[in-house]
Amino acid sequence: MKPLDRTRGVVEMAHGGGGRAMARLIESIFLTSFANPLLNQRNDQACFAVEKGRLAMTTDSYVIQPLFFPGGDIGALSVHGTVNDLAMAGAVPLHLSAGFILEEGLPLADLARLVDSMGQAARAAGVAIVTGDTKVVEKGKGDGVFITTTGIGIIPDGVAPSGERARPGDAILLSGTLGDHGVAVMSRRENLSFETAILSDCASLHGLVAAMVAVAPDLHVLRDPTRGGLAATLNEIAQQSGVGMELVETAIPVKAQVRAACELLGLDPLNVANEGKLVAIVAPKDAERVLAAMQAHPLGRDAARIGTVIEDADRFVVLKTGFGGTRMVDWLAGEQLPRIC
Amino acid sequence: MKPLDRTRGVVEMAHGGGGRAMARLIESIFLTSFANPLLNQRNDQACFAVEKGRLAMTTDSYVIQPLFFPGGDIGALSVHGTVNDLAMAGAVPLHLSAGFILEEGLPLADLARLVDSMGQAARAAGVAIVTGDTKVVEKGKGDGVFITTTGIGIIPDGVAPSGERARPGDAILLSGTLGDHGVAVMSRRENLSFETAILSDCASLHGLVAAMVAVAPDLHVLRDPTRGGLAATLNEIAQQSGVGMELVETAIPVKAQVRAACELLGLDPLNVANEGKLVAIVAPKDAERVLAAMQAHPLGRDAARIGTVIEDADRFVVLKTGFGGTRMVDWLAGEQLPRIC
Repeated sequence: MKPLDRTRGVVEMAHGGGGRAMARLIESIFLTSFANPLLNQRNDQACFAVEKGRLAMTTDSYVIQPLFFPGGDIGALSVHGTVNDLAMAGAVPLHLSAGFILEEGLPLADLARLVDSMGQAARAAGVAIVTGDTKVVEKGKGDGVFITTTGIGIIPDGVAPSGERARPGDAILLSGTLGDHGVAVMSRRENLSFETAILSDCASLHGLVAAMVAVAPDLHVLRDPTRGGLAATLNEIAQQSGVGMELVETAIPVKAQVRAACELLGLDPLNVANEGKLVAIVAPKDAERVLAAMQAHPLGRDAARIGTVIEDADRFVVLKTGFGGTRMVDWLAGEQLPRIC
Repeated sequence: MKPLDRTRGVVEMAHGGGGRAMARLIESIFLTSFANPLLNQRNDQACFAVEKGRLAMTTDSYVIQPLFFPGGDIGALSVHGTVNDLAMAGAVPLHLSAGFILEEGLPLADLARLVDSMGQAARAAGVAIVTGDTKVVEKGKGDGVFITTTGIGIIPDGVAPSGERARPGDAILLSGTLGDHGVAVMSRRENLSFETAILSDCASLHGLVAAMVAVAPDLHVLRDPTRGGLAATLNEIAQQSGVGMELVETAIPVKAQVRAACELLGLDPLNVANEGKLVAIVAPKDAERVLAAMQAHPLGRDAARIGTVIEDADRFVVLKTGFGGTRMVDWLAGEQLPRIC
């Protein structure tokens, strides 16, 4: 059997066959980038001890196109996105699993690059990719690579954010600028270039959450506004909690070049996906303290209080515009930007 | 927005957009089939209490074609396969997550059918699908549906099967007939029909494992011979443990019609995938007891002792043939049957 050519080789059907070609691919690409004692055991599962407590478990499939975009790639995103879903439960991320669906013909150099980026993101986030799976589908039956990561994490005592816990009077905090990820991907897809490069914000937010929990453990709701953007996220929470929300448009941070790109592309930043931002809904007494903790963290430098939870049987999310008017923040039926994560 | 037509509708890009169309798909199809308290909370993660102990975590992506095959479908398979990888650690399955990558145009009736089958398999196995994710890719960028499931389970004290624990003298036990799954799928794919229908053996094996652990907790190795078949599984274990293996051909159970189909298709049953069988490697003193426990369980009725672990620096797996000769059981480079799981 010929050795794996990481420079000019491509994914072949045999790499998904459970035989020696697959074993070689796993050794040469996955084990080198992800190396950790649990994965290195090469069993079909990872086994580890846990203390009595509460766990969070979450999964996401990543199908973003293009695979490489300004500020990140599908590999890094598949770590950050799942770490963030753990962090939104207030959990400290522990382990990740990764399932790869590769399309025949994918250059091995691309695979090696995105897997390496995935390994770096995991190490930076302090999590290990402890178990995984690789499948290959025929050319034209996939799209380069799809990655599904699942994470488990440990929730500290006294921490229990959940979508149904927003209460009238609570403050709505946002950790930073909206729309960076969606616009970065879209500009790459449309081959647009702007005066200043717009980079995806993709980042793991568990450190920011830890800083927030340290000053106010009882955060009511935490959620990252990914697909569907802030609009979808707040409408979902309003539904789950049976409340309304009132946002102040001028308080919502959006970078000037992102706002300009959105105008050009016909997008509303409120509907655009983010991959390194969070919304926190907190009791009024905690609002100032949590906001200060966010602003003191590198990933929350632009954090702002953007609105307030109100009583509303209709569960509407409304925006007080810069012009003194009010408009509904609607939840789109579909998505302006397919395959953004 | 038009209501979801479960009879004549198809998956649309909007169903993956994170908006209202996706929420409706999830409510109408996933929540109805998977209903359980953790999933019903509709957060981006499931949170639950665990006791101090050891956990197993495993993941698999399922890309099988066709989606529906004699004896099962991709939905049921995605539960059985992952439950089995937990069971092979001796773990009692606890929770599953599920990530769906849907191709635009997939009939909703097919999706509903396979999701329902998945829910049934999970309930039968006593596990809940507690969190999930849905993505949609354009027509021609996927293949109907890909499912990635991740499972976590609890490993009882004193149970620690692992691929590197095979020792010379250990008995090699197989829980039943080889090749049923691969031949069932292949016959459907090739539109072959046989006198007797050949059905996939796909089944959850944690109950069988529990019966084995009850009589001999210290099983050395447990593994399910899926992709690559028994040949790949035993070669992997031989590598991990640094041992050889000697199998007795006449002791390996294969159904007559599966053997005939393999001859027709040019396949060796030792290389064909199984989805409801396990290999156990146990200390000589435990062999009889474990074999009896297997044969007393409905999923181990045809269990047999098929060989013995031997010392061999070359880590070869050899087969004593019915004619008194010996042949190497080779590990194929790729796979005879792509997309079998």
